[in-house]
Amino acid sequence: MHKLVLLRHGESTWNLENRFTGWTDVDLTPTGVEQARAAGQWLKAAGFDFDAAYTSVLKRAIWTLWHALDGMDRTWLPVTADWHLNERHYGALQGLNKAETAREYGDAQVLAWRRSYDTPPPALEPGDARSERGDIRYARLSPEQIPLTECLKDTVERVLPYWDAEIAPAISSGRRLLIAAHGNSIRALVKYLDKVSDSDIVGLNIPNGIPLVYELDAELQPIRSYYLDEAAVAAARGGAAAQPAR
Amino acid sequence: MHKLVLLRHGESTWNLENRFTGWTDVDLTPTGVEQARAAGQWLKAAGFDFDAAYTSVLKRAIWTLWHALDGMDRTWLPVTADWHLNERHYGALQGLNKAETAREYGDAQVLAWRRSYDTPPPALEPGDARSERGDIRYARLSPEQIPLTECLKDTVERVLPYWDAEIAPAISSGRRLLIAAHGNSIRALVKYLDKVSDSDIVGLNIPNGIPLVYELDAELQPIRSYYLDEAAVAAARGGAAAQPAR
Repeated sequence: MHKLVLLRHGESTWNLENRFTGWTDVDLTPTGVEQARAAGQWLKAAGFDFDAAYTSVLKRAIWTLWHALDGMDRTWLPVTADWHLNERHYGALQGLNKAETAREYGDAQVLAWRRSYDTPPPALEPGDARSERGDIRYARLSPEQIPLTECLKDTVERVLPYWDAEIAPAISSGRRLLIAAHGNSIRALVKYLDKVSDSDIVGLNIPNGIPLVYELDAELQPIRSYYLDEAAVAAARGGAAAQPAR
Repeated sequence: MHKLVLLRHGESTWNLENRFTGWTDVDLTPTGVEQARAAGQWLKAAGFDFDAAYTSVLKRAIWTLWHALDGMDRTWLPVTADWHLNERHYGALQGLNKAETAREYGDAQVLAWRRSYDTPPPALEPGDARSERGDIRYARLSPEQIPLTECLKDTVERVLPYWDAEIAPAISSGRRLLIAAHGNSIRALVKYLDKVSDSDIVGLNIPNGIPLVYELDAELQPIRSYYLDEAAVAAARGGAAAQPAR
């Protein structure tokens, strides 16, 4: 049996300000730092260990990983940071808070974007100062590979090839992986692993800073999954069964 | 021309307490964190950029690297953590402060250990709780590869094979590297690059948290080297020449 742990980043400055973040590279808040350290400490307390870690190229996920690794005394583990694990790109909404967005586009439209699997928000103009084209961390990509907006379906379609090419082979070879990523890149993995429908996945919330554990069989099919929150840590130490994740 | 930057970790808790640290895995102090961030900001301000970074498997160097990378907006760069870049192993002195050591061994003996290139301090007993044998981060090494003490010569003799096998080929291939390491693993590199004698190298002090820049020719021979401190950053921005490192 393989174990895989997914970890959404801790609270970011724009989570706190309720802004659409997407690929914007914002910091963790002090609360986010504490969440990340606690996640690492829970993992250690529950007996988890890892051979390698993956994350996005956005610092709220990278710092979450670093603090979690320190919380489990594993700062020296190999880390791969890859753009495929980035958050969903939120297009022209990036930087707007929810009130600004509602004023500009109307509540009904915003709800439609948030609830739809395949309708992207308005795209950034290629010359928009918020565009990541020209950002050195994406220099090896062609301009067309750098999104100007994404629906969740687009995010799924960039995350899954990376799963197939990099993550799944590593798990199959016996490596115990920790992946620190984002609400929507983790949704993409959960949708694939648990075969969640297009309509159900948009309503699935991934909490900040709570490890999501998957136990996978030899074909990498889920046996069970659960959140390793404080109660689950206590249960794991006491030998009781954890509650299923969903 | 190639550029290589060496960075000794920021102040650690045991630097502050004046204890022999060696392979003991101690944290940075808040001052050490600030030094590391400043180093990254200086490097960025002076126009440096990197393709990859190397560090030891000790968290004071790893955290120094992480904060420096964040200071230059490069948290996503590939990082290799390798034990060859660890601090000199200080044997049975690890954990003792300078006063305790002088009481136990005498001032003259302590001075001899500190000033000698090839006399190691007393070795740890293999069963000593301070020994790193059994530490999971060294699990792939044979017990004989994990030192119980080292003189500086021993440190040089483990660092240089790693330079030859990993670092030098990466530089020659055009990669711009940042190496965050320790007083004595950096001394090993400086001794090799600048052909410093055995007797001179023991007196060479590497300051905490100040980037040491090497400009190397195509054969990786030094053209010049200098510390990128605040004055050098100001000079680099003003176009003036930096002072040589030694």
